[in-house]
Amino acid sequence: MLASPLQGAAGVKVLAFDVFGTVVDWYQGIVDEVRAMALDVDAEGFALAWRAGYMPAIRRVMSGELGWTSIDTLHRMILDDLIRSFDLTHLTEVQKARLNRVWHRLPAWPDSVAALTRLKSRYTICTLSNGNIGLLTNMAKAASLPWDCILSAEVFRKYKPDPAVYLGAAQVFGLEPGEVMMVAAHQDDLAHARTCGLRTAYIERPREFGPSIPKDVSPHPDNTFHAGNLTELAEALDC
Amino acid sequence: MLASPLQGAAGVKVLAFDVFGTVVDWYQGIVDEVRAMALDVDAEGFALAWRAGYMPAIRRVMSGELGWTSIDTLHRMILDDLIRSFDLTHLTEVQKARLNRVWHRLPAWPDSVAALTRLKSRYTICTLSNGNIGLLTNMAKAASLPWDCILSAEVFRKYKPDPAVYLGAAQVFGLEPGEVMMVAAHQDDLAHARTCGLRTAYIERPREFGPSIPKDVSPHPDNTFHAGNLTELAEALDC
Repeated sequence: MLASPLQGAAGVKVLAFDVFGTVVDWYQGIVDEVRAMALDVDAEGFALAWRAGYMPAIRRVMSGELGWTSIDTLHRMILDDLIRSFDLTHLTEVQKARLNRVWHRLPAWPDSVAALTRLKSRYTICTLSNGNIGLLTNMAKAASLPWDCILSAEVFRKYKPDPAVYLGAAQVFGLEPGEVMMVAAHQDDLAHARTCGLRTAYIERPREFGPSIPKDVSPHPDNTFHAGNLTELAEALDC
Repeated sequence: MLASPLQGAAGVKVLAFDVFGTVVDWYQGIVDEVRAMALDVDAEGFALAWRAGYMPAIRRVMSGELGWTSIDTLHRMILDDLIRSFDLTHLTEVQKARLNRVWHRLPAWPDSVAALTRLKSRYTICTLSNGNIGLLTNMAKAASLPWDCILSAEVFRKYKPDPAVYLGAAQVFGLEPGEVMMVAAHQDDLAHARTCGLRTAYIERPREFGPSIPKDVSPHPDNTFHAGNLTELAEALDC
């Protein structure tokens, strides 16, 4: 017999959110920035290529090939490759540094701020992102995200999906893993969280990769919740 | 020629706050809790003794005698000693655990919430406390402290006054030390911050140790600012 939604949330104290794609729209943020800078490139292709470099860069840190390296620095390493492949070598250092900080200024999805504010009334809400603390703090101020706490892989010196990050989120708050629910728009992130004993909520975000690239947002039966957006999650959690 | 107050704050991006005694009133919080529990002890003496155990416990971690140990655990170690010396061995484990969490529920000084809200409009405001992340997050929710970011010694695995904490606060935000201002009611904390290149603001809090124990709140000429409370600091910083 399936658990009802309220049974699914019973005992949960902390909601830990993936950020890029789940709470903010990295695709549109980068596309808008590239267009505002009037760069002579395919803005959509540039955004997708930058994000596509992310997991390979994370894997280089996880494998030990790179020592601990912040996301700001990894984003810059990927950007430096893109500057060559997209023929943007005329950019000045000031322009490159400013472009790299676009990740600090990504726009929230339209439902995020209001829904997080509702969820905060009943739960402790924190980030649980591979983004570095400074990036996530600057993003929160720019986009008015009302986090109770900025938690980051940087605190644990391990990147998701290392179990140390998911288990660390529970330990930081002195909780059992099952008292924390991971919220993400990515089934792999949630699968790793579940392996560590966290509860999980999937958020669809069908336009994460832009309007022309379809995303599979079908439910996975092992998630505690499945919601079209954060407003639906707030409603399911009776906030 | 002395810098004017505005010159003193020029370039500052982040205000990093000591918390116990500076933003919240640990003395009154503990006194009230002991009285609410109707413990048959001198509540004021108990509060002072608990806090007096803090620096010796921190030094045991800094010296390497103890491995990394959270403030929650250090508070409990001190409490266990006090339970013997104050003849409270009849307390149950549930009562002891609840009493130890009083540090998560300390009341803000009357000016703190409004002044932090003003300061947040112009600066990134974060904790920079030896308190662990979970403690500081729970305290912020209970006392409505509007932090942009919970920074803690736990992030750096070093306790103040280790330079790694002060320098770490700048590094986390990608800033130079002089772009961060430490705010504290303790001259020694500020002196260590200054050695690391941070700017400093002293907050008086003359009743930190209760109404009957005087505290020297005289200015130190090397601080960037000296304020009677956080409202005065907000005014000095034109917030």
